[in-house]
Amino acid sequence: MLAVIVNMIETLLKNKKYSSLRDVLSAVNEADIAVIFGQIPPDSLPLLFRLLPKDLAADTFALMDTDSQELLIRGFSDNEIKEVFDELYVDDAADIVEEMPANVVKRILKNTDPNMRQMINEILKYPEDSAGSLMTTDYISLRPQMTVDDAIKRIRRTINDAETIYTCYITDENRHLLGYLSVKNLLLARQEDKICDIMDKTIVCVHTLDDKEDVAKEMNRYDFVTMPVVDDEGRLVGIVTFDDAIDVMQEETTEDIERMAAISPTEESYFKTSDIKHAKNRILWLLILMLSAAITGTILSKYEEACSAIPVLVSFIPMLMSTGGNCGSQSSTMIIRGMSVDEIKLKDFFRVVFTELRVSIIISVVLSLVNGVRIWLMEGSFKIAAAVSISIVGIVIISQFIGCALPMLAKRCRLDPAVMAAPLITTIVDAASILIYFSIVTRLFAI
Amino acid sequence: MLAVIVNMIETLLKNKKYSSLRDVLSAVNEADIAVIFGQIPPDSLPLLFRLLPKDLAADTFALMDTDSQELLIRGFSDNEIKEVFDELYVDDAADIVEEMPANVVKRILKNTDPNMRQMINEILKYPEDSAGSLMTTDYISLRPQMTVDDAIKRIRRTINDAETIYTCYITDENRHLLGYLSVKNLLLARQEDKICDIMDKTIVCVHTLDDKEDVAKEMNRYDFVTMPVVDDEGRLVGIVTFDDAIDVMQEETTEDIERMAAISPTEESYFKTSDIKHAKNRILWLLILMLSAAITGTILSKYEEACSAIPVLVSFIPMLMSTGGNCGSQSSTMIIRGMSVDEIKLKDFFRVVFTELRVSIIISVVLSLVNGVRIWLMEGSFKIAAAVSISIVGIVIISQFIGCALPMLAKRCRLDPAVMAAPLITTIVDAASILIYFSIVTRLFAI
Repeated sequence: MLAVIVNMIETLLKNKKYSSLRDVLSAVNEADIAVIFGQIPPDSLPLLFRLLPKDLAADTFALMDTDSQELLIRGFSDNEIKEVFDELYVDDAADIVEEMPANVVKRILKNTDPNMRQMINEILKYPEDSAGSLMTTDYISLRPQMTVDDAIKRIRRTINDAETIYTCYITDENRHLLGYLSVKNLLLARQEDKICDIMDKTIVCVHTLDDKEDVAKEMNRYDFVTMPVVDDEGRLVGIVTFDDAIDVMQEETTEDIERMAAISPTEESYFKTSDIKHAKNRILWLLILMLSAAITGTILSKYEEACSAIPVLVSFIPMLMSTGGNCGSQSSTMIIRGMSVDEIKLKDFFRVVFTELRVSIIISVVLSLVNGVRIWLMEGSFKIAAAVSISIVGIVIISQFIGCALPMLAKRCRLDPAVMAAPLITTIVDAASILIYFSIVTRLFAI
Repeated sequence: MLAVIVNMIETLLKNKKYSSLRDVLSAVNEADIAVIFGQIPPDSLPLLFRLLPKDLAADTFALMDTDSQELLIRGFSDNEIKEVFDELYVDDAADIVEEMPANVVKRILKNTDPNMRQMINEILKYPEDSAGSLMTTDYISLRPQMTVDDAIKRIRRTINDAETIYTCYITDENRHLLGYLSVKNLLLARQEDKICDIMDKTIVCVHTLDDKEDVAKEMNRYDFVTMPVVDDEGRLVGIVTFDDAIDVMQEETTEDIERMAAISPTEESYFKTSDIKHAKNRILWLLILMLSAAITGTILSKYEEACSAIPVLVSFIPMLMSTGGNCGSQSSTMIIRGMSVDEIKLKDFFRVVFTELRVSIIISVVLSLVNGVRIWLMEGSFKIAAAVSISIVGIVIISQFIGCALPMLAKRCRLDPAVMAAPLITTIVDAASILIYFSIVTRLFAI
């Protein structure tokens, strides 16, 4: 369907049917327009963009990708920059400014109105991953002594600046946060009610320097559409809106998943990342893991004698190593994800270890039985089957222990648990598996 | 801090300071009360719960865990059940009913008001993972011919039933969805404006039977706080709210991550899952992977001769297998996550394959150089170093190809890409690595 629409728009453009184009675009949601614009040849973009109604243009602009935004800004007159940026919500404007090269930023800040410029700078001064950098300074604040009628009048007067009116915040004259009021309760109240009598005084807020991941978690915990952000003195300086919180949650999850696969996380999307960058993000861990796997190899070479004496022993190595690795990564995945959604806490350490111990006993018995019988039937040697089966029991139990304990220890040492991820655990488990296997084999066969 | 509060509450309870308790609880957010209640001994729970103001009680109840909810309901009188459930939002009530055992459900439905009962049943009739099962039937609908003044009056009249008033939906007399209007625009309009003149007619909605994961993705794409749900005839039957959409996104991500670690996903939390269930969720994949790793072993045993001729060759096997496995799981992770956030699409297949090919060439050159030099220095044999280095080049390229191609092929066959996950790819890559290594070695050493 996207191709059809893009095609239609290109045809209309070619035939100069501008008024139809404007009608078509006005009937489409801004998020969809941004997607469509991503497919249009760049040289028709400025013309198309100018056909959009003013407020739709700003909303669409905020949703386009950075490259298209830069292309458009470079083509804009000073006046057009002013028109678009003054319509944007402050947090979107700050995000865009942050991504642009210096000369473009200069043009933007020169052409936006002083109030907007100050708010953008306000947001840009906070550290990258802080609540301050995520917030918008567009919010509605009310005073406790206002009546509902005053409040509604004030909202109508200031509403155009505010990204959201789901929740109004009540502050004193020094901007200290006193409480909040949902628009729902505002509409439900009588006109003459005082705000201080109907507001909710249970204050939940975050600090400007709080980590944005924690802010998103708190918002999810309380089901908040917006979260107030206060400074050191408890003064309200902005709010974080749910759409930005969702984006943070998604980014953080992607980072976790990438770390668990031994990839250094990147903020760029897959196709936007250069080949060299892709390789760089992966190669460090590959080198570390490759060299640590060489240690497993060294251990293995200590048992050359055993391997030459009973060559078939070698053929079980891949199976034992992979089973150990898989058990370890299953445990570590459960624990890492459990910790990142706050279901498993550090104080649960022993509870987790005992759970994994019990689970690993069940698993190891089943796996060693299946495997023992298979090997006995296929190789005809009960002794070999027994050696492999006993090894599996030891390997599964040790692997699950390492898999659950390491991520929790990492967190205890204030490291990201996901870094202690599947591949690293697999490498440790590999070495352990080889050791367990050969110490059982050498004892059993007295090599 | 939690322990402090729990302690304080227990002391107040013991000393029968009920009115202070009520004051304390009224000053705390419902989400926090639910957490605190989770730490209180179950036998004091009913008493504490009865101390909560009525509306706070219902909100807290919705946020408690299923076990505590069941415990409370079993202790409730019929009248208490009615009081709590009539205060709940319909989607929360339906969620609770769904989790309760049959005899509790019967008591709940007997004691709720007929209107509520009908709405709960309405939601419960949709399939488990559908938009219908996720939606609430509490929403505000307006008629196009109403004036803003009429609309605000209607909202004030019906507001208590509606979970959210962020967006009002406009329907005709047959409940067909005609457009929407944010409360912001409603407040901004003049009293005499007609709703049909100020409403937004670009309709974005989902169908009752749409997968809830897609609904969450759409809401994220459009930054919607609520998403309207329509039936086959395009009639509005409910809305999905952002808090439920966020929960769906989190659940689906957890499922993806679990599948990628070869664990069958479960809806239960880690500690709520029994040992047997934990083992069951993991053992099937472990068996499959163990038996397929046995194939790698069989391939390996074909080269027994080479291993006996040059025993040191065996010691490189763990390193080669782990490097292949890690490269494969890095690629598959990038692609699986890229597909699940809709960044990589099926039509990008060749683009992805070529990207991974270029990246794998860079990575393989670096890894084989580092490793070749290391082995040359440590083993003193240029020929062995060359054999391992050439193998690494082949293994890295093949592994990244398998790692990116398999998840996309799985999606093409309408399978969950995450099932083609790291462990399965690792197993395939292991076999490929052994084959590549020994075909190079046997040729080079003419064994």
